Amino acid sequence: MKNIYLLGATGSIGEQTLDIIEKQRDDFKLIGISGYSNFDKLVEITRKFLPEIVVVKDKFDKEKLVKLFPTIKVEFGRQGLKTLATYHKEDQDAYLINALVGMVGLEPTIEAIKIERDILLANKETLVVGGHLVSLLKKQYQFKLYPIDSEHNALWQLMNHENTKDIKRLIITASGGSFRGLSRDELKNVSVSDALKHPNWSMGNKITIDSATMMNKGFEVIEACYLFDLDIDKVDTVIHKESMVHSLVEFNDGSILAHVSHPDMHLPISYAMNYPNRKVTHIKPFDLMLLNNVSFQTMDLERYPCLNFAINAFKIGGSMRTVLNAANEAAVDLFLSGKIKFLDIETIIEEAMRKHQVIDFPSLEEIYELDSTIKEEIYKKFR
Amino acid sequence: MKNIYLLGATGSIGEQTLDIIEKQRDDFKLIGISGYSNFDKLVEITRKFLPEIVVVKDKFDKEKLVKLFPTIKVEFGRQGLKTLATYHKEDQDAYLINALVGMVGLEPTIEAIKIERDILLANKETLVVGGHLVSLLKKQYQFKLYPIDSEHNALWQLMNHENTKDIKRLIITASGGSFRGLSRDELKNVSVSDALKHPNWSMGNKITIDSATMMNKGFEVIEACYLFDLDIDKVDTVIHKESMVHSLVEFNDGSILAHVSHPDMHLPISYAMNYPNRKVTHIKPFDLMLLNNVSFQTMDLERYPCLNFAINAFKIGGSMRTVLNAANEAAVDLFLSGKIKFLDIETIIEEAMRKHQVIDFPSLEEIYELDSTIKEEIYKKFR
Repeated sequence: MKNIYLLGATGSIGEQTLDIIEKQRDDFKLIGISGYSNFDKLVEITRKFLPEIVVVKDKFDKEKLVKLFPTIKVEFGRQGLKTLATYHKEDQDAYLINALVGMVGLEPTIEAIKIERDILLANKETLVVGGHLVSLLKKQYQFKLYPIDSEHNALWQLMNHENTKDIKRLIITASGGSFRGLSRDELKNVSVSDALKHPNWSMGNKITIDSATMMNKGFEVIEACYLFDLDIDKVDTVIHKESMVHSLVEFNDGSILAHVSHPDMHLPISYAMNYPNRKVTHIKPFDLMLLNNVSFQTMDLERYPCLNFAINAFKIGGSMRTVLNAANEAAVDLFLSGKIKFLDIETIIEEAMRKHQVIDFPSLEEIYELDSTIKEEIYKKFR
Repeated sequence: MKNIYLLGATGSIGEQTLDIIEKQRDDFKLIGISGYSNFDKLVEITRKFLPEIVVVKDKFDKEKLVKLFPTIKVEFGRQGLKTLATYHKEDQDAYLINALVGMVGLEPTIEAIKIERDILLANKETLVVGGHLVSLLKKQYQFKLYPIDSEHNALWQLMNHENTKDIKRLIITASGGSFRGLSRDELKNVSVSDALKHPNWSMGNKITIDSATMMNKGFEVIEACYLFDLDIDKVDTVIHKESMVHSLVEFNDGSILAHVSHPDMHLPISYAMNYPNRKVTHIKPFDLMLLNNVSFQTMDLERYPCLNFAINAFKIGGSMRTVLNAANEAAVDLFLSGKIKFLDIETIIEEAMRKHQVIDFPSLEEIYELDSTIKEEIYKKFR
């Protein structure tokens, strides 16, 4: 029996995690959850699972929730997330599932690592922005870090027990997102609603836009370097429209191993939660004949400059990754609220990176501070 | 450093094994070899590698070889193969590589198991005919059995450290062999030389014919059951013309893992020899764009009755597998020497199986005896 501490319960990953907990009542117990903007859904989940602790957005939401559930511990904000991540410090059967979106996910990961809690990670920013901190902590603390992202989860399945030195390269597949058929010129006037129509995956808004700009793939390349301790020149990407092959690993002997499945996040979540076992999921059997229609296409960095920004940010290192992420978060937010055009996302990130003076090994506080500064500057400009 | 005892050095697998030994002189030392019909090649290999022991076909070849290499130990025949398989009994760094073709490969495997020597297995008949014996010996002796066959080697790479209980099914790919484009009717008058033109793999004559009849795939299904301890209803086959995907494993959670590479036997041989490491091979990098043209097609048991015979022989069990193999060996031999037509292979096997009274758990001697009887009966009929 594993006790689950779930950050980001109301999002897409959170919801699918709850499906699995519900189906495997004998294997998992939900101890705590957090939610942010979707208060009603948080209430619904709380009613259904009756966790011990719920973390909400702010004091106002806390008061509302306490009234509904007087016996449940309710916390809020940044401190609340830290409390949830380290709740029942001594719990030896704990999994922190970090399904937060954005920079806010970094601190709870760090806190959980410091109490040696095992982490199932869906929050990309933890490694994009704080990978250097996590790597350092790996030397001091004993903890497991299992990826939930479909691509990294696939890579993990393929590399299980293989030697890193035998790996020639990882190949992360990219669907190409909602605008993959469009030229640079056609991207100029795309709408928000079109951008949110991902052809294969049903995901949150932020990641759907990151998928259209290919920034999502850039984040994934950075994550893969940290997760699997590989140099960035060993991590490639390829366009694969059908989202059936979730990633591939090429070895020095000429073997390539590939992970194939329907695009359904229940699968990587279930794999990470049940590792080293695999549990039957509701996912319908994959008909091999579908492989008759797979396609692969070389990645085009000119078409997708955001991927290039991410690669460069990783190579430059230190605080440049914070700038990459902060500028992207702000820009995507501005695009979603209709304040900028799609291609402005790139311009904003590029400019923020160009102006930045790198700090080599930023601390958590420096990261949070820089994140705020960058975002404020961008928001100021477009308010 | 591993000491290599190589059965079947002059065949296709043998030759490729020698390539690897030559390239990895610091990792492998060739102690002994056997050859059969290709004496000149055996001389050539002996000259190049100067092994301690060489096993030849008969007394006559022994005399010739002793004259050429007076300091090398030379043995011959069935006893010679047993001697080679167990040579330097106490050698703790030994690998027996069994690349023999046919039933003759069974006994040396059994002998090697009894001295707890690790075995790299390319000889299919060991498990097709003697799988029940090997399974029994597994309970008494400590030894490793690594598959060299490309399909099983691929499955091994994919299942490494997975739990058997999590496997939904193995999917062995089949190129379809040299006549895959032909209907049953068109198979009636095909020639030997056409049968020997395998579209993807360069292999020995016997296995190339087995590939055209799909008996080879039937043998592989049986082998997979023994190697991975799975029931036959968990082992499927699929037609995959391009021989790029060497097999797939489907798990209960909905994941499918696939092994992709150029069709080159150096790869599985190298993997087995170097396990758990992988060594750089000469095989050219696999261009992912090749996957744009892969095709999969449901296996048709009516088109390929030999596959069905093999499945039935496995299900019936015991000595029926010996009959399957003996009848097939004789029939393929008769076809290769022009004495029967291609479709007669099937008729001969079917008749031999129909007439047979099953012995439940045949001993090695019973297997050898039955093998001779079956073959003699068939040869008598077509002499």
